[in-house]
Amino acid sequence: MKSRAAVAHAPNKPLTIEEIEVGGPKEGEVLIEIKATGVCHTDAYTLSGADPEGLFPAVLGHEGAGIVVDVGPGVQSLKKGDHVIPLYVPECRECNFCTSGKTNLCQAIRSTQGAGLMPDGSKRFSIDGEPLFHYMGTSTFTNYTVVPEIAVAKVREDAPFDKICYIGCGVTTGIGAVINTAKVAPGDNVVVFGLGGIGLNVIQGARMAGANMIVGVDINPGKKEMAERFGMTHFVNPREVEGDLVPYIVNLTGGGADYSFECVGNVQVMRQALECCHKGWGTSVIIGVAGSGEEISTRPFQLVTGRSWRGTAFGGAKGRTDVPKIVDWYMDGKISIDPMITHTMPLDEINHAFHLMHEGESIRSVITF
Amino acid sequence: MKSRAAVAHAPNKPLTIEEIEVGGPKEGEVLIEIKATGVCHTDAYTLSGADPEGLFPAVLGHEGAGIVVDVGPGVQSLKKGDHVIPLYVPECRECNFCTSGKTNLCQAIRSTQGAGLMPDGSKRFSIDGEPLFHYMGTSTFTNYTVVPEIAVAKVREDAPFDKICYIGCGVTTGIGAVINTAKVAPGDNVVVFGLGGIGLNVIQGARMAGANMIVGVDINPGKKEMAERFGMTHFVNPREVEGDLVPYIVNLTGGGADYSFECVGNVQVMRQALECCHKGWGTSVIIGVAGSGEEISTRPFQLVTGRSWRGTAFGGAKGRTDVPKIVDWYMDGKISIDPMITHTMPLDEINHAFHLMHEGESIRSVITF
Repeated sequence: MKSRAAVAHAPNKPLTIEEIEVGGPKEGEVLIEIKATGVCHTDAYTLSGADPEGLFPAVLGHEGAGIVVDVGPGVQSLKKGDHVIPLYVPECRECNFCTSGKTNLCQAIRSTQGAGLMPDGSKRFSIDGEPLFHYMGTSTFTNYTVVPEIAVAKVREDAPFDKICYIGCGVTTGIGAVINTAKVAPGDNVVVFGLGGIGLNVIQGARMAGANMIVGVDINPGKKEMAERFGMTHFVNPREVEGDLVPYIVNLTGGGADYSFECVGNVQVMRQALECCHKGWGTSVIIGVAGSGEEISTRPFQLVTGRSWRGTAFGGAKGRTDVPKIVDWYMDGKISIDPMITHTMPLDEINHAFHLMHEGESIRSVITF
Repeated sequence: MKSRAAVAHAPNKPLTIEEIEVGGPKEGEVLIEIKATGVCHTDAYTLSGADPEGLFPAVLGHEGAGIVVDVGPGVQSLKKGDHVIPLYVPECRECNFCTSGKTNLCQAIRSTQGAGLMPDGSKRFSIDGEPLFHYMGTSTFTNYTVVPEIAVAKVREDAPFDKICYIGCGVTTGIGAVINTAKVAPGDNVVVFGLGGIGLNVIQGARMAGANMIVGVDINPGKKEMAERFGMTHFVNPREVEGDLVPYIVNLTGGGADYSFECVGNVQVMRQALECCHKGWGTSVIIGVAGSGEEISTRPFQLVTGRSWRGTAFGGAKGRTDVPKIVDWYMDGKISIDPMITHTMPLDEINHAFHLMHEGESIRSVITF
């Protein structure tokens, strides 16, 4: 079938809005009409050409929401009309990762997904006969996309697509890092580095978990007001701290963070986030994505004296299980999303959404179809 | 009182056997007659002058066992005649570290201990009127030593001093890293880097915890036989592996280590130990002590894909609580110590014990008084 899509033909070029051909769903797949999609830094990272695993031409996008319009043979958990969020981390519930109970990193379709292909090794997008790569198993920058059943979360039908699409990545990544990965407990002191969208979601996750101090760290004081709205209790601007940032935060938190979260993607900040953790038990969780080839470093003494260094992908969330719950939390008012959706625009303006992100003028732009 | 002791007058010089003066126990302190003490790499590290916190002249030694011969005012948990193991990690049971339930790193006397002093700021050793520094709060290279009550584990009286002294450091560090820090579970695959004394104790801890594969990694094939005796199931000599060690171990363990332990103190090995862990949940525990100023590094992707990097000191053990239990395990035959005590000698020969360690000819030498 035909679909309007934003196509990434080559690195570091604007997306072009075109009509593409989308092949129907095969065994175990569903066709989704995308109603809304966020534009995320990860899309921009790949589009920039800096992602060594980036493939072109491709249909980018991984933060969508929509409606199932067709199902392939053997699909049992979904039917036409279901409201859904595509998942870039699937949940097959059968691989040894899914059944381990220790990780959300389902490996069922990892190799084909990483290669920009459907699980059967094919591409289902084309333009004038030229195939286009899939992206992160989701490709949401198109009105219609094809996704494996195991990579789809079914959600309630009264939730607005132009808000819950953000749960497809940013919201779940931030809140999940707090709840699933760190398991922040009531009374814990939390430090959040970077007050962009992920940082705000970490903050509201920490508030939901009953954290005591929620310290936000950002070099942009303009981020303070919004972060406070989401639950930040203390703001630290590293540029206004005299001396080293780490001892400042250790002192502020009465010994260090019980949990710190790096939401920037800067390896130096990752080190600070670890070293500001409380001796004996503080845990630092890396969420941000560092540049290709960059490395984190610290003295092993930091770990031997009881700190833990961890990371998280998609907030440690099992998508089919956890994403519907987070949609419920949003609908029940337990978490907030609307103030973070700073811009909503049609597909034609998607390059403007990237521009706003680059300029730091948006928290999240959402494309509606 | 007078005591025969091995005195470290200066870095990188042999210890001298001398008669020193030991002041009696003050408030909250006990005087211990040391019956046996191990000679550990940490003593050698400080003696070499490489330890930036090393102080001279001092009475080194931190792996002792003996009998309480006098108690100061206010001491309630110990009495004359008690068999004890001095603790370089105390357990006051009152500081916020002890009461946290999250760490063994009691901070009650940290600053004075690190400064080579008793908790009241004094030194209790002297020779011809010249004061000597204490070491690690224990100073076991002397027939009589003074230790705070909170830094003493009371143990059963039928346990042989010349074996259980090793529980004062190496045994507890290795077994505790498995049981307290990693919490290895039955069926887990474990990889141990470095098959010295600590590595052997990690191995027997893993066996006790019901580990499935226990892979030992060492460049010295001569370590294989003893390690197998303690429970190693697979031996890997990195020099005999074609290609990179990390993928070799990942393949050997069917996806990577559930837990890996670094028992060498080499920052490159620490990186290998992390990177050979299983995607999604593998945890690497640093036990070895790296050289001053050395740093560990990795790509953050290693953590974002679910590995955890941790460390441990004294095996995460709370000394007064856990050390008596480990002595029981030894006496009950649940763990083995005797084969690791490769040499036993009088104090006069202590420099020979250091020599054997440097040459790799001993697992553990024990000095008996």
